Amino acid sequence: MCNLHGELVASYDKYRTELIEAGLLLESGVQGVYGLSGTFEGIIEAFERYVTRAGAELNPEVVRFPPILNRKTYLSTDHIETMPDLMGSIHTFKGSQLEHLDMVDKMNKGEDWTRSLAPADVMMIPAACYPLYPTAANTVLPSEGRLVDLRSFVFRHEPSPDPARMQIFRQREYVRLGTPEQAHAHRDYWLGKGQEMLTALGLPVKAELANDPFFGRGGKVMAATQKEQELKFELVVAVASEEKLTAISSSNCHLDHFGKEFNITTENGEFAHTACIGFGLERITLALLKTHGLDPEQWPSEVKQQLEL
Amino acid sequence: MCNLHGELVASYDKYRTELIEAGLLLESGVQGVYGLSGTFEGIIEAFERYVTRAGAELNPEVVRFPPILNRKTYLSTDHIETMPDLMGSIHTFKGSQLEHLDMVDKMNKGEDWTRSLAPADVMMIPAACYPLYPTAANTVLPSEGRLVDLRSFVFRHEPSPDPARMQIFRQREYVRLGTPEQAHAHRDYWLGKGQEMLTALGLPVKAELANDPFFGRGGKVMAATQKEQELKFELVVAVASEEKLTAISSSNCHLDHFGKEFNITTENGEFAHTACIGFGLERITLALLKTHGLDPEQWPSEVKQQLEL
Repeated sequence: MCNLHGELVASYDKYRTELIEAGLLLESGVQGVYGLSGTFEGIIEAFERYVTRAGAELNPEVVRFPPILNRKTYLSTDHIETMPDLMGSIHTFKGSQLEHLDMVDKMNKGEDWTRSLAPADVMMIPAACYPLYPTAANTVLPSEGRLVDLRSFVFRHEPSPDPARMQIFRQREYVRLGTPEQAHAHRDYWLGKGQEMLTALGLPVKAELANDPFFGRGGKVMAATQKEQELKFELVVAVASEEKLTAISSSNCHLDHFGKEFNITTENGEFAHTACIGFGLERITLALLKTHGLDPEQWPSEVKQQLEL
Repeated sequence: MCNLHGELVASYDKYRTELIEAGLLLESGVQGVYGLSGTFEGIIEAFERYVTRAGAELNPEVVRFPPILNRKTYLSTDHIETMPDLMGSIHTFKGSQLEHLDMVDKMNKGEDWTRSLAPADVMMIPAACYPLYPTAANTVLPSEGRLVDLRSFVFRHEPSPDPARMQIFRQREYVRLGTPEQAHAHRDYWLGKGQEMLTALGLPVKAELANDPFFGRGGKVMAATQKEQELKFELVVAVASEEKLTAISSSNCHLDHFGKEFNITTENGEFAHTACIGFGLERITLALLKTHGLDPEQWPSEVKQQLEL
């Protein structure tokens, strides 16, 4: 087990080093936080246009949220209970000039100066769809439900040597709000469609039943329940490691979890169900670079054609 | 003075309400944090392509940083000393299951649960070029210097009813690292070029000598020095208010401030000078919407042509 882990870390280190040496990733000195080259970003942009084309016939509403959300919204979800170790709470300095001198003094002495900070009204976004639900709070959905196209940076505090496990990355999502049937159909449609789309890019993804990384002992029960109810599927493929595959897309049913929390209802007065497909944009780019090589100009012509690169 | 302030807030409220009613901005419940509609984001994307075309002949390196940076990098700048009230420090939960129960209990009782958090290794980015300098640390620049094209979300804790004063927004920047002459020439070139570019979009911008919003009494001295040395110019235009103009672009000389902090040198062994032009993408979009109307399809054809909308 220990050896297996060592091999895994070695494969992470190898691919990460290749990416850095090729200038595709720039190191920040913190695990999982990188600058991206123009080439890397260009692949993300091309993939995003591919996603836009795939969803165009469904005529989604488009909303773009910044990487932060209202602290109250965060606390309206159960993230603090279920995944506290991944959260990002934003704190700032609200004190006087005297308190400022004291804080700077602490910093200069190598003491914990952050105790001088106070929480701001915002948190990092844990998943692209979180900031959407409060904008639909206390509304009744139209009979056809709603389909929303989202993209946001999301934050997860999980420093890792795996270049595919970033602390901050972008999710492109299609979210459905509607009846249980509408939500379920959305999830199933996009699980198939997503698999098709990624396969067409030469990524041999397979769908796997999955669970969120819930915290602690209670989390194990929640994860088992989530799997039993078949709420989460991931599309996985080899990125840094051939042995441990990486999820590059995930398709989730939330049941009426968010509908209840934000009082979003369907025409018949029941709490709305929601479901989403999320594409991990940096991970998909890393999978493409791993599969087809570090120079997109040399990628197979079918892949370039699909991406209109 | 009080009345003037009242009028200003009224003009902020009026424009913000118009934008929200038109569906261009979505409220988050926190001042200065909004969701953006597809139309709003489409203008940003078009303006970004316009900036790319304007800089293409200079053949810049392209780097894209995420909205967070290494805490050590943040502390290598003097931001904690000069603008602590704008900072965003990211904290997370690193405790045990027992400590988790205690934190959730505090939250449920309405107590300050954030005291259970610990600082993560990352902070919010205060300006788009901050994460660039450490990637050039301890290097000697080529004789022609370096030109880097950046875009990043930046965070500034300054909640405001002014729709143009967001807590999180995107800066698109061209940064020059080189000799004092190269840096100065870059600033002057882009100050003129930026003014041309924005004027061509029907925005009657004017260049104004400016200063950063330094903290406290000492900050007043720093601001005066910055003005005296003519280090910062802003391109300002009416956005929410005709009386109080809004900076939508800013052009800055940093002298050898970052060169020294990160030991970046020129061929002759001196510390590099740096300079940048930054375009405030959300503000420029708000200026365009204010000037030409809330429906981009109805904008003057010259403007649409320039933006290839």
